[in-house]
Amino acid sequence: MGEKHVAVVGATGMVGREMVKVLEQRDFPVSRITLLASERSKGLQIKFRGDLIPVEVLNTNSFKGVDICLFSAGAGISREYAPIAVEEGAVVIDNSSAFRMEPEVPLVVPEVNGQEAFKNKGIIANPNCSTIQMVVVIAPLHRKAVIERIVVTTFQSVSGTGKKAVDELERQVKQIQSGEHATCEVYPHQIAFNVLPHIDVFLKNGYTKEEIKMVNETKKILGEPDLRITATTVRVPVFVGHSESVNVQFSKSITPEEAREILVEAPGVEVIDDPERNLYPLPIHCAGKDPCFVGRIREDPSAPNSLNLWIVADNLRKGAALNAVQIAEILCENKAI
Amino acid sequence: MGEKHVAVVGATGMVGREMVKVLEQRDFPVSRITLLASERSKGLQIKFRGDLIPVEVLNTNSFKGVDICLFSAGAGISREYAPIAVEEGAVVIDNSSAFRMEPEVPLVVPEVNGQEAFKNKGIIANPNCSTIQMVVVIAPLHRKAVIERIVVTTFQSVSGTGKKAVDELERQVKQIQSGEHATCEVYPHQIAFNVLPHIDVFLKNGYTKEEIKMVNETKKILGEPDLRITATTVRVPVFVGHSESVNVQFSKSITPEEAREILVEAPGVEVIDDPERNLYPLPIHCAGKDPCFVGRIREDPSAPNSLNLWIVADNLRKGAALNAVQIAEILCENKAI
Repeated sequence: MGEKHVAVVGATGMVGREMVKVLEQRDFPVSRITLLASERSKGLQIKFRGDLIPVEVLNTNSFKGVDICLFSAGAGISREYAPIAVEEGAVVIDNSSAFRMEPEVPLVVPEVNGQEAFKNKGIIANPNCSTIQMVVVIAPLHRKAVIERIVVTTFQSVSGTGKKAVDELERQVKQIQSGEHATCEVYPHQIAFNVLPHIDVFLKNGYTKEEIKMVNETKKILGEPDLRITATTVRVPVFVGHSESVNVQFSKSITPEEAREILVEAPGVEVIDDPERNLYPLPIHCAGKDPCFVGRIREDPSAPNSLNLWIVADNLRKGAALNAVQIAEILCENKAI
Repeated sequence: MGEKHVAVVGATGMVGREMVKVLEQRDFPVSRITLLASERSKGLQIKFRGDLIPVEVLNTNSFKGVDICLFSAGAGISREYAPIAVEEGAVVIDNSSAFRMEPEVPLVVPEVNGQEAFKNKGIIANPNCSTIQMVVVIAPLHRKAVIERIVVTTFQSVSGTGKKAVDELERQVKQIQSGEHATCEVYPHQIAFNVLPHIDVFLKNGYTKEEIKMVNETKKILGEPDLRITATTVRVPVFVGHSESVNVQFSKSITPEEAREILVEAPGVEVIDDPERNLYPLPIHCAGKDPCFVGRIREDPSAPNSLNLWIVADNLRKGAALNAVQIAEILCENKAI
């Protein structure tokens, strides 16, 4: 396949840096890379294939000649600049929530609904981190026995919020160790040695936007607008790696053994499920890795045809950067770009 | 009511110390206090009402003249010594799992089934921490609209394991800060900046004993042997305070407003539920406090008559020491001791 001019918008953020790293690690056919960020990042350089690439300040002229543009700079920036990139002829893969629920924008997890990517009209949305890792694991089960209902509770790491939140957790730990008051700049409450049942903003119905993202995006990716699903999303003092306790009710029987057999073969999934040897997915082990890990697969006798699952993935990689690059890969491989 | 000779077995553990503190704080009618522990604690003294009480080494002669004996030294010690204490005429309130599921042993949460305490034949069991805080909140709702099914995921603090686990979390944080490998003595994996879907031992069916405790104890306390309930219990790097994401399906409609009205009036419950002002229960705020806190009360549209709740309590107090002392109080107040 031909080499592409790739741009990364938000290149100095945690996800942006991971995107550059993943492009290099996966040997993506890059002829030229353009790293874009805000005025604040002016003067920074990021390494790509041994070269230090200077970060450029994003502006309306940034997209000339760009083939693929990965956005991860927040919904506002995406809304403003993605249409300009498309106008210039680029395909945009957008990691923000800006376009995810727009009917004409494909919301893609390659292992689940990769073919949707070809329907794009210039913009493809990358789903929310907590949604991606769940659908990678449940989609192959859904194909075997249609899912009727999902009850999910998440344990999300601070890197999902960004570098400032990672710094906040580190700073608060030191403040508490010194007997000082933990100051809060990023989160409304202390995150060190605490858990916050609050991710993104609250909506009128009492749910957070993060919870509603999981509900709506899961329905869209699975192509099941009537799927019954409820979520409680919680921030925990973990640096990288989101964990999820997922209760799934199916339309027909699926035993833990059958689920395990399906998942062992499923693309992008790795089963770690040997409780006798204390083996189950853990965020500290999944950080830096590509698969969505699943374990603690067990029958839930409280409802018919139900299973409990424990799903963990690196929220910066499969939850964001890796998924975006995988979307770019299927476009390239199919000469759709 | 007459004053009592109270003994605390396991007095130097985290729960034992909290029991002594709660007895003093609640002005329990103590004529004499006997503090018992293992050989290792010999020579230690614990303050009670201004006096330093020497800790005695537990033996078969420790219970002479004791009226009430609070046990919190593990199931093995309870199995061995509780019958001896009963033989000597004491009423035992046992915080271990040793007797909880024995049919003739009442399993008591005073706000929920206090009257069961009077049926004791010498031993009353104090439920598991994660069970207590959940039933205090759901029992008043169950009285309004019978509960059909519960899906619960917990976020449990290290103090639930004991002082060694608190030390392990502190030590691991320092090791990681110094770039060292975090050593594990208490938990099978690093707990600092991590979450462990593993509390107590694994059973053949893939559940942990902690998860099955929540299932069985909830049924026994509510007097609903056929209640449908499933649990996923997870250890988090929090020092004190367990949090729970609880999905409850009722037999008839109960709106979040109705639930809030019931819970505001419910004994032992405090509602903190004002998301617009970022107010919801947090373990760091609930540590050291008596109530079971509940917030994020919201309708779950994924199943009929369902609510999501976020429940937090101090696992050492209401989850253990306070509940045990409250049981002793109702016995004393009713001259049942």
